Amino acid sequence: MNSRILSSGNLGIKRFFALDNRAYEKGALEVKTKELLGLVASMVLRCDDCITYHVIRCVQEGVSDDQFFEALNIALIVGGSITIPHIRRAVEKLDQCRANQRNKEH
Amino acid sequence: MNSRILSSGNLGIKRFFALDNRAYEKGALEVKTKELLGLVASMVLRCDDCITYHVIRCVQEGVSDDQFFEALNIALIVGGSITIPHIRRAVEKLDQCRANQRNKEH
Amino acid sequence: MNSRILSSGNLGIKRFFALDNRAYEKGALEVKTKELLGLVASMVLRCDDCITYHVIRCVQEGVSDDQFFEALNIALIVGGSITIPHIRRAVEKLDQCRANQRNKEH
Amino acid sequence: MNSRILSSGNLGIKRFFALDNRAYEKGALEVKTKELLGLVASMVLRCDDCITYHVIRCVQEGVSDDQFFEALNIALIVGGSITIPHIRRAVEKLDQCRANQRNKEH
Amino acid sequence: MNSRILSSGNLGIKRFFALDNRAYEKGALEVKTKELLGLVASMVLRCDDCITYHVIRCVQEGVSDDQFFEALNIALIVGGSITIPHIRRAVEKLDQCRANQRNKEH
Amino acid sequence: MNSRILSSGNLGIKRFFALDNRAYEKGALEVKTKELLGLVASMVLRCDDCITYHVIRCVQEGVSDDQFFEALNIALIVGGSITIPHIRRAVEKLDQCRANQRNKEH
Repeated sequence: MNSRILSSGNLGIKRFFALDNRAYEKGALEVKTKELLGLVASMVLRCDDCITYHVIRCVQEGVSDDQFFEALNIALIVGGSITIPHIRRAVEKLDQCRANQRNKEH
Repeated sequence: MNSRILSSGNLGIKRFFALDNRAYEKGALEVKTKELLGLVASMVLRCDDCITYHVIRCVQEGVSDDQFFEALNIALIVGGSITIPHIRRAVEKLDQCRANQRNKEH
Repeated sequence: MNSRILSSGNLGIKRFFALDNRAYEKGALEVKTKELLGLVASMVLRCDDCITYHVIRCVQEGVSDDQFFEALNIALIVGGSITIPHIRRAVEKLDQCRANQRNKEH
Repeated sequence: MNSRILSSGNLGIKRFFALDNRAYEKGALEVKTKELLGLVASMVLRCDDCITYHVIRCVQEGVSDDQFFEALNIALIVGGSITIPHIRRAVEKLDQCRANQRNKEH
Repeated sequence: MNSRILSSGNLGIKRFFALDNRAYEKGALEVKTKELLGLVASMVLRCDDCITYHVIRCVQEGVSDDQFFEALNIALIVGGSITIPHIRRAVEKLDQCRANQRNKEH
Repeated sequence: MNSRILSSGNLGIKRFFALDNRAYEKGALEVKTKELLGLVASMVLRCDDCITYHVIRCVQEGVSDDQFFEALNIALIVGGSITIPHIRRAVEKLDQCRANQRNKEH
């Protein structure tokens, strides 16, 4: 669907998508830190698609379970109980990613 | 005003305030990373008082200007132009903190 | 999934979940009033999982249909037409709960 | 400013304002409960003007301090630490209202 | 489900639904402009049901693809990357509507 | 403060600001329509600085009072009574702009 949107000819949307990608590239902050920032921002704004994306990226960048839950805890404190359903789905996704990692190691 | 609220006798609020403090203490993630998470969460939820608090804490934890602006950029991308007035006030606060740091060094 | 999250070892999240439960216990306000507060808060923040939970609890606490719709009306006025899809789902859940109640009486 | 807006000739806005007033009138729920619903909804949506209005109305309807803080606690749990600056201002307003009440009794 | 809600006897909700319909009727602004306003408001508040409704109405009112994507671009800029999943679904719906239009022409 | 932010050297933020400006330029939609879209988006997301900016721009683009209030009415219906304090401030700004216009004509 992204390629469909990019093919619409709207230059603003195309450039926004490029900026979105670049924001998470290595700079003065590590990619891992940036993905945690993206995860917590997505969590307090309660967007499941965005959360899923950043969970996968956090796992790829080597975020440990303890680091992951500390980030979720900050999102929970800042955003309140309204984030709990999203935390459930984030942890479900984390468990899937970990299972995939274990399968690949075998 | 915090002490007024804590003196209200409401145990739930008192415990929430304690959890809020603990969420940013050193754990598997560094304090500096946690303060950046708090900053970006406050920015996308657009709470100036919370932003001010986390800007001060980020400066205390040694966040560099480049790191600071990369975090703001993620908040801007995730949260959109609606965050721009808050970014302005965050940068104003950052500049004040830096001026204070320079004064102390002399 | 809650037990999975609680087993993560993150004490902050665990304690938040405890505070969340206690907030709705009887105190100076009745449980029924507190569940209506939870329902309206969930409605204006537009979280279907939270709404479903509080609809079930409101029915258990004896909220009448008229009281339920008056609470929904306040949520609709405060939160606007953006809440309408959630109001639809809340009423669908209410009707299910009422059907379950009727089945139990027979 | 409300009368200025109502004099604009826009019938939709005029009728909305009328619906807004009626939503808090006595019905199957007491006015007091409805004002608490308005307070918590305003708190989680973080609108200081709306909070101030409902704090004043809650005091007029005889909400006790304990009831008030229990309602704030639910808002804090549902909405998270991002509501804390608004809770501070709500309690400040509550204290003003109580001081006014004491002055009138003398 | 709307007729179920309207049959609840709650006059406030009934009148709100009437105001909601009237807000998009032709006045000093064209219906087409009003539907675009509804679309962008729904997009930045991220309500898929509302977005779907306004996409269908925009197509009915003769909004062109270029106009549609320019409105989405404003929503994306104002609301940020958190709107991207909703933009995907809006474009998917647009494509369905265009396919339906082509089928009718044959 | 914008020039201060742009001088920070963060390319992402700089490019975002450029995209933000371009989003409101004439294209398939008129500038006037785009400013109304920006106004309603800012209203439902409740950002006074953004509202002020778009009110001024709407007046510059020749939006009539009736058109202005119809757009506000849509924001009010979609976003609910929580937008009312922002509607008040928008109308206050509109009245200032109209007074300025009248002064210039003399």
